[in-house]
Amino acid sequence: MRRTSFADMNCSVARTLEVIGEWWSMLVVREAFNGVRRFDDFQARLGIARNVLATRLQSLVEHGILDRRLYQDRPERYEYRLTEKGRDLYPVLISMMRWGDRWECPEGGPPVRLTHEKCGHDPDPALVCSHCGEQLVPREVRAEGLGAAPARR
Amino acid sequence: MRRTSFADMNCSVARTLEVIGEWWSMLVVREAFNGVRRFDDFQARLGIARNVLATRLQSLVEHGILDRRLYQDRPERYEYRLTEKGRDLYPVLISMMRWGDRWECPEGGPPVRLTHEKCGHDPDPALVCSHCGEQLVPREVRAEGLGAAPARR
Repeated sequence: MRRTSFADMNCSVARTLEVIGEWWSMLVVREAFNGVRRFDDFQARLGIARNVLATRLQSLVEHGILDRRLYQDRPERYEYRLTEKGRDLYPVLISMMRWGDRWECPEGGPPVRLTHEKCGHDPDPALVCSHCGEQLVPREVRAEGLGAAPARR
Repeated sequence: MRRTSFADMNCSVARTLEVIGEWWSMLVVREAFNGVRRFDDFQARLGIARNVLATRLQSLVEHGILDRRLYQDRPERYEYRLTEKGRDLYPVLISMMRWGDRWECPEGGPPVRLTHEKCGHDPDPALVCSHCGEQLVPREVRAEGLGAAPARR
């Protein structure tokens, strides 16, 4: 099924795709952010085939994004929680959501409404420079390095 | 090849994956942000099979992310440029890059270095609330809506 390994490319976008690029993975991660922890709950919320879900969960555990913990002995039952590495996918998830809200949402409004509880408002997420606080736009960011070319083939 | 259509799910993450979820798509978009416009240049930079690249470019044009323009008559040659919708993927790309830099970069440092030309520093990109300017963290953002469940199956 897998076509190419992106892990060997010396590019952080490619390496991220190697981990979360399988389409279902980000939706499993989305549900984990929604507080879902158990196999049957992921299955019910995603409407995903059980074997596909099992494969995705295993891959997310292997990549250190979800932590698998026994929560019941007989029968053995496990739950899945986001690790620090997994929680750090939040900006990726929110950026994808924001883009989809803006460009792929024809039926009258975003399906999910976010509220920033700290200030009580719609956060309208923006990516900014941590140093000066300005919003990052492509023409003002210079990228230098090896990222464009595959490191090995 | 395609396993599931995520376009019918009432979720902006799923709809975004429907458009950019094919692994190569984000790398084609990455190269477009790097200024690449021509088929042969995409091909050389990505080391991608020509038929796969042609399919990806066509899909990105169909989804309105790239604009295809004739730049030479005989023989006919086209170039591909990011549309406004395409340029708006910048936060997704940068968030993925930042995550990969942090978590999937074992060989001593990120392969690409960003400089925010407006302030001259490494931007260390952060996702913030546009209203209050604070960094968005999962436990401080409430999500309400229909996003979790598929709208139709």
